[in-house]
Amino acid sequence: MAITQQQWIYAQRPQGTVGPSHYQLHTQPLDTSLAPGEVLIAARYFSVDPYMRIGQSAKATYDPQPHPLGVVQQGGVVAQVLASKASAFASGDWVHCYTGWQTHARVAAAELTLLDSTVAPVTTALGVLGMPGRTAWFGLTEAGRPHAGEVVVVSGAAGAVGSLVLQFAKRHGARVLGIAGGAAKCAWLRDTLGADWAIDYRDHADPDSMGAAIKALTGGVDVYFDNVGGMVTDAVLPLINRRARIVICGQISQYSGGLDTPPPGPRLLHHMLYQRATMQGILARDYVHRMDEMTRIVAPWVRAGEIVFEESIIDGFDQLPSALNALFTGEHRGKLLVKA
Amino acid sequence: MAITQQQWIYAQRPQGTVGPSHYQLHTQPLDTSLAPGEVLIAARYFSVDPYMRIGQSAKATYDPQPHPLGVVQQGGVVAQVLASKASAFASGDWVHCYTGWQTHARVAAAELTLLDSTVAPVTTALGVLGMPGRTAWFGLTEAGRPHAGEVVVVSGAAGAVGSLVLQFAKRHGARVLGIAGGAAKCAWLRDTLGADWAIDYRDHADPDSMGAAIKALTGGVDVYFDNVGGMVTDAVLPLINRRARIVICGQISQYSGGLDTPPPGPRLLHHMLYQRATMQGILARDYVHRMDEMTRIVAPWVRAGEIVFEESIIDGFDQLPSALNALFTGEHRGKLLVKA
Repeated sequence: MAITQQQWIYAQRPQGTVGPSHYQLHTQPLDTSLAPGEVLIAARYFSVDPYMRIGQSAKATYDPQPHPLGVVQQGGVVAQVLASKASAFASGDWVHCYTGWQTHARVAAAELTLLDSTVAPVTTALGVLGMPGRTAWFGLTEAGRPHAGEVVVVSGAAGAVGSLVLQFAKRHGARVLGIAGGAAKCAWLRDTLGADWAIDYRDHADPDSMGAAIKALTGGVDVYFDNVGGMVTDAVLPLINRRARIVICGQISQYSGGLDTPPPGPRLLHHMLYQRATMQGILARDYVHRMDEMTRIVAPWVRAGEIVFEESIIDGFDQLPSALNALFTGEHRGKLLVKA
Repeated sequence: MAITQQQWIYAQRPQGTVGPSHYQLHTQPLDTSLAPGEVLIAARYFSVDPYMRIGQSAKATYDPQPHPLGVVQQGGVVAQVLASKASAFASGDWVHCYTGWQTHARVAAAELTLLDSTVAPVTTALGVLGMPGRTAWFGLTEAGRPHAGEVVVVSGAAGAVGSLVLQFAKRHGARVLGIAGGAAKCAWLRDTLGADWAIDYRDHADPDSMGAAIKALTGGVDVYFDNVGGMVTDAVLPLINRRARIVICGQISQYSGGLDTPPPGPRLLHHMLYQRATMQGILARDYVHRMDEMTRIVAPWVRAGEIVFEESIIDGFDQLPSALNALFTGEHRGKLLVKA
């Protein structure tokens, strides 16, 4: 089998926004001869996630070292088996793996997870039944712990994680306010995802204005599920209720340079004291070993069509670096994927 | 019984530091006739606490309304009974109450707690066996949860709460770094309280410098018990270890105006995410009903002389407003009291 492998090599550390200038496209023939236990896969869908930009920070993040330069950009992939020397996999099988931004790869069978396309679309392994779903579910249930009747505020509510948090919180009986950018996204939060309220952060020039709007709608905030940080957090923190839970899931407003050089913002931790609130940082990898707890509950909702898991699919392997850029500047809703 | 009552009336809201200009001294005869169930007390020791300045903030704090103007400054007091029409109290008894900054008062018996001066000095009801001790004990054990071998960093470590947190953390087997202002306080933390390390924040012009010093001593921080906020928090947050616990007990660096108008500081919440840390605000009042849990453990230590609970006693009722000011500018160690 003659295969031409394409790879996006992470070549230069971004200072601000990441994009094509930080990657190099390598094209070469791939040796497709397999050792026992190896599988040849062709990537079909690539995950594009905000966390990728965290790993490009020059400072230590959740990993002690930044993403190395000169190697394939790491990331989750949904692929199909082209050839197999492992008994658990056959040609045509759909799999989930972490082979990153390359069109083809030889992989040890242990690094593959078989997908059942009759249970749910295979792309859900990169979304509602994968890392973003896990982040949303365990972040909300373990750190947010919403009760019926409570107010949950979700920032980045139109994103892959936020759009699921919003729906999961509604299922817990909470009243949910989603914050997103633009009137169209806000309409989607309300009309399609079922948010009780939506706020377009672009309508507000400062946190006092946004805070007044949130206060007028909700009266106060019991759970703040934060994907964004920055001005949105400045607006929400003074509004927390007694024993509020704040989930720090992302701080995307700082990813394009603000992790290396944190920008200033008002000091608001006294509100934690006033309200005896709890803030907890959460990361999807901490819950990998507990995926069965989540899929037991969420997969039936997905099968029954009760969860909206919109996917924005960009066509073409060559689009990957600009797709990553689009996470920080673009208009996509739900999960952003690139189709090979 | 002819008694002249003196009262410090909270008269004007401070913008920055609080002091005598915000109080008025009232002197008047007190009607000492008692109704059944009433007790006449003479205050002997007045508590002076940083939280008093929080209550003077113009914005909502842990109470929805600021401390009202035109009334006696609220606060804890150790007093003696002068006369009693309540069977549980007799002349000469020592009591703890919340009659605030006045020399004498008629009080309903239900508002008094009898003190046993043979168990511990009566002033400990305002310190190690009172509100500051409760704050230190439950803040550390419920929110900080230190393990043997872990690193605990305490800001405001020479204060009433911090000096106890430091010692309680040592008893849990933790390695403890105290942060305080001035070489004398730091020597006291090490030599008298048993801190493994002490840092004088005045030696550091910026958080990077202080952070480098903390990192060099400790390697990283598992529990940060914060009484101060501001630059100290800026120095510590980037040093937290995986699953760190941050206890927000006080933010005294913001009390002299910075609660009404929060000053800017670097946005550092991404470290909560990186390390999957937890931050929790704690307040002494939440644990009043659990004091028996603490005194069961701590009172024997106090009786055995195993806990250092230094008191800085300022003499004279007339000194109260300047004593409150001294909390924010002064050189006292441990618990600050005013003796009537």
